[in-house]
Amino acid sequence: MNANPQFLATTAQVDQAAIQALPNSRKIYVTGSRPDIRIPMREISQADTPAMFGAEKNPPIYVYDTSGAYTDPQTTIDIRSGLSPIRNAWIQERNDTEELSGPSSNYGVERLNDSKLQALRFNLQRKPRRAIVGKNVTQMHYARQGIITPEMEYVAIRENMQRAEYLQALKQSGPQGEKLAAMMGRQHRGQSFGAAIPEIITAEFVRDEIARGRAIIPANINHPEIEPMIIGRNFLVKINANIGNSAVTSSIGEEVEKMTWAIRWGGDTVMDLSTGKHIHETREWIIRNSPVPIGTVPIYQALEKVNGKAEDLTWEIFRDTLIEQAEQGVDYFTIHAGVRLQYVPLTANRMTGIVSRGGSIMAKWCLAHHQENFLYTHFEDICEIMKAYDVSFSLGDGLRPGSIYDANDEAQLGELKTLGELTQIAWKHDVQVMIEGPGHVPMHMIKENMDLQLEQCHEAPFYTLGPLTTDIAPGYDHITSGIGAAQIGWYGTAMLCYVTPKEHLGLPNKADVKEGIITYKIAAHAADLAKGHPGAQIRDNALSKARFEFRWEDQFNIGLDPDRAREFHDETLPKDSAKVAHFCSMCGPHFCSMKITQEVRDYAANHGISEIDALKKGMEVKAIEFVKTGAEIYKKS
Amino acid sequence: MNANPQFLATTAQVDQAAIQALPNSRKIYVTGSRPDIRIPMREISQADTPAMFGAEKNPPIYVYDTSGAYTDPQTTIDIRSGLSPIRNAWIQERNDTEELSGPSSNYGVERLNDSKLQALRFNLQRKPRRAIVGKNVTQMHYARQGIITPEMEYVAIRENMQRAEYLQALKQSGPQGEKLAAMMGRQHRGQSFGAAIPEIITAEFVRDEIARGRAIIPANINHPEIEPMIIGRNFLVKINANIGNSAVTSSIGEEVEKMTWAIRWGGDTVMDLSTGKHIHETREWIIRNSPVPIGTVPIYQALEKVNGKAEDLTWEIFRDTLIEQAEQGVDYFTIHAGVRLQYVPLTANRMTGIVSRGGSIMAKWCLAHHQENFLYTHFEDICEIMKAYDVSFSLGDGLRPGSIYDANDEAQLGELKTLGELTQIAWKHDVQVMIEGPGHVPMHMIKENMDLQLEQCHEAPFYTLGPLTTDIAPGYDHITSGIGAAQIGWYGTAMLCYVTPKEHLGLPNKADVKEGIITYKIAAHAADLAKGHPGAQIRDNALSKARFEFRWEDQFNIGLDPDRAREFHDETLPKDSAKVAHFCSMCGPHFCSMKITQEVRDYAANHGISEIDALKKGMEVKAIEFVKTGAEIYKKS
Repeated sequence: MNANPQFLATTAQVDQAAIQALPNSRKIYVTGSRPDIRIPMREISQADTPAMFGAEKNPPIYVYDTSGAYTDPQTTIDIRSGLSPIRNAWIQERNDTEELSGPSSNYGVERLNDSKLQALRFNLQRKPRRAIVGKNVTQMHYARQGIITPEMEYVAIRENMQRAEYLQALKQSGPQGEKLAAMMGRQHRGQSFGAAIPEIITAEFVRDEIARGRAIIPANINHPEIEPMIIGRNFLVKINANIGNSAVTSSIGEEVEKMTWAIRWGGDTVMDLSTGKHIHETREWIIRNSPVPIGTVPIYQALEKVNGKAEDLTWEIFRDTLIEQAEQGVDYFTIHAGVRLQYVPLTANRMTGIVSRGGSIMAKWCLAHHQENFLYTHFEDICEIMKAYDVSFSLGDGLRPGSIYDANDEAQLGELKTLGELTQIAWKHDVQVMIEGPGHVPMHMIKENMDLQLEQCHEAPFYTLGPLTTDIAPGYDHITSGIGAAQIGWYGTAMLCYVTPKEHLGLPNKADVKEGIITYKIAAHAADLAKGHPGAQIRDNALSKARFEFRWEDQFNIGLDPDRAREFHDETLPKDSAKVAHFCSMCGPHFCSMKITQEVRDYAANHGISEIDALKKGMEVKAIEFVKTGAEIYKKS
Repeated sequence: MNANPQFLATTAQVDQAAIQALPNSRKIYVTGSRPDIRIPMREISQADTPAMFGAEKNPPIYVYDTSGAYTDPQTTIDIRSGLSPIRNAWIQERNDTEELSGPSSNYGVERLNDSKLQALRFNLQRKPRRAIVGKNVTQMHYARQGIITPEMEYVAIRENMQRAEYLQALKQSGPQGEKLAAMMGRQHRGQSFGAAIPEIITAEFVRDEIARGRAIIPANINHPEIEPMIIGRNFLVKINANIGNSAVTSSIGEEVEKMTWAIRWGGDTVMDLSTGKHIHETREWIIRNSPVPIGTVPIYQALEKVNGKAEDLTWEIFRDTLIEQAEQGVDYFTIHAGVRLQYVPLTANRMTGIVSRGGSIMAKWCLAHHQENFLYTHFEDICEIMKAYDVSFSLGDGLRPGSIYDANDEAQLGELKTLGELTQIAWKHDVQVMIEGPGHVPMHMIKENMDLQLEQCHEAPFYTLGPLTTDIAPGYDHITSGIGAAQIGWYGTAMLCYVTPKEHLGLPNKADVKEGIITYKIAAHAADLAKGHPGAQIRDNALSKARFEFRWEDQFNIGLDPDRAREFHDETLPKDSAKVAHFCSMCGPHFCSMKITQEVRDYAANHGISEIDALKKGMEVKAIEFVKTGAEIYKKS
């Protein structure tokens, strides 16, 4: 059905790149209360501990898996068919939606009827769905009625994978199980700044968090292909990857490939920020092939529809765009309704003005018409659309600072307050909301952002870009921002929007996407550790144990990027034998601190506790009063 | 004099790579109170603001310059001759040192007399110096006697370069000077956690900080080639780059090249951690060509001298090594005197035992002999050597955690306490001290490290490796650790030891060294901003202004890595015309938020303040109470 040979060539490429499982990894599924609730996890198998360190069996570990069916060899991938619509039954069983005869937006109809687009079009047989008139189909609406949806159960199981159940199983796994479980489960008590993450996430806990607006499950009824995930500060910190072409460069095939690439490395959601030609068609291909929620900024497309003239935008064009995208299955919309006319002049003395594209479009519209932002005045109309498809709000920070100079200024903080007011309006409609945040902020002003957001937006999940902690490193803004992202994640941000090395300079390619994703997986995980997220440390513990025991392959495979770790190792010590050698290139064969440590352990084992104690006491020149005892530092789990 | 053709080929390479100035940059010197105090700075010139943004003249900015004479086209570089010994006169004028007839260490004599080494040896004509018997030649000793040395004056001027004087000059630089100075000098009030950085650093302030042990100037009298620098929490945060071959790989030429490469990108000090053959000769080449202080871990070489058998180490061998290296000009020694016998058994139950090479050597020695660490028992003897050459202590954290699991445990914190006791002993001898710190620490436990260090080590400068905030990303540990380094720098760490992407996997090559350096420059600068270091934000402000005004070349050149920024930009928009285009590849020509912002500014300018105020008031649906006013957030400077 797709006649464009160049485009097909690109899609074939996607298949090959995406369907390889990661090394020593296997996709498994945990089944929930019904057979069609099947939660994917990645199982990473490990080698046994070498004899010199005790010859233990090391059980597999399980990690959260965003990569979808692409890494499942049981599934045949053909991006022309899209993914299996695993949520279809759940949606239909609720009996509150109807299948439409076709797109109900003017633009959707127009594109469908344009035969010139045939070659580019994804061939979707399924018709769009919409809430029956008078019904509200949001997860928040169900949650507030006390209903636990399959989506809620799904995310509860998904969030638990690194937790108590795993350690319980480990304990029962043979003679060394008890010891291993204790070692793997040992974890520092975190500092959570008010986050309250239970040891076991139940579906009821998920429901309650959604009902009170503290978490969202972005899950458009027209995106039945997603594997549900949750965004909230009492859950694992998530990351988003932006993709999208612009008028200058990039094709549909490349964008689909960036999506599959982004989720392979851990993207929890993907935003399609395309601004060029064929936005509608590109989006369809991405959504139909995406197992993660897709976000967009509808104003970008609306602007294309008025040929780039912000002043020509109207509510009607915007409304039609929302419906068009909602019926394709976009899971969350960035809406810059907080860019109120009164805030616009506050940006005139900024160093870098308005850097948000959506923000600047709305600012221009406001000034041109000398009227209040139509996204603000039509906010309740927007809510009506959102709740008919369960599209979540991502309330845009159109006035976020674009430089350290502009951080936390009155324009930014004024908008934040408005976003808080809009949150309450959305919640009145049971529409799910998250709040976008900055931007460029020096480290010591990051916490203020988080605290104000929690207070003024009533604990709606925060979703921040970075923040970048300095402006002086173009080419390295994944790092300037990764520093800020880790901190704001620790303080309570629920999802971190990645920044790639190309930020401020150009469009990211696949290598940049991966670099951005891995940097943000690091930031998110560092935040989980600091918050004391139950079970988060298991992966660190497993990797460190592999490292100590010179299980090189396991060290690579448990890490976030096995390919790079292996490549770096092999640069210095390329021989296969080196990967089982009990030394590394940093110290060389005669000079190994790990080996010496093992001698310390052997000494301790051979001499017994009493002798060790005697040694300690005998050598004491004066009494040692340790600042902290182990019991105080560590949390038993 | 150097007959090894392969080696010469490599040194020629170094020359070519190192002597290029960075783009649009010029080396200038500021002269102090005497003509031989000449402090280098890098002047980065800027283009004028384009007409649409106001056609302002943008004066050059000045940045701290670690790259030495290599980036000075006025200097002829020949690494066979080494750098000019700029401190010679200062040292000789003090009349407290004597020139020796040759090396006074046994090993130094032995190597000098070994004719097989002729081809490898740096041809140093100068004889080593040592304090006259009974004299103490440390900067701390002078400081405590109220003497301001040329080194102290030098660092005072060097630290001031981004500050009030620059803004003062700017103010007087023409009609727009006042406005520009106000804009460039505007800076957020920081959060300093007890650091107290004056607006202007005076030589007297430097003297006082050194006298009380809160800062050090590592400056061996046998390393007269250095451009002095200061390490302390009331100064700019510094970074260290480790280089060094091992038995497995790397040559002398490569190591010299890594040093020149590291300082080109901003390394403030360099540690030579070589463990392989020709340690002595490699070190000589590095020191003679290094304008930055060089640190070493003498126990590595001592171990080589006993063929890798830790138990065969003796105080005599170690002592001879200290003298050998002190007479070559090493500026600071890592000494693992805190690895006391009583702490060794505390590591037996760790996940990753002892990961410090020096720590594990001393642990092994202690266990083998069942005796207290000879570095601890001979600590005063070591002080006697240090003060005869002004070598600074870097008290090693031999028991630092090698995994998140082991962070802040009793072995680590016990050692820290001992380091505090040793600090006081060193200070009794007026020997300069800094304290090494971890390691692997989750974010929420980083501040505890800093607070305990300040308290227990009496504010001696902290010098930390990272810390790495998670273990799960081998191949990206520059990032896992950059996150921690930025935070601990903010909390008060004076120098950050870089970590490269090869950490745990292999030896860094030049690309890795650069990646590590830039990451740590980011961390250090983010820390300076967060501490509110006076003038730190000027570079951010200048870069952001260039960015806003589409001065692409200036944006590249003001950044930490102009080469990469330009390369990334050109990947998407390779045409030269694009570098003056008023749009970027992210949005395309019809869709530019910067352009729209300018329209907002024009609107504001055309309508005047009163109308803007009316606009704001008129549109107010209800009273707006901003959370913070500008006056509260910003510090006027």
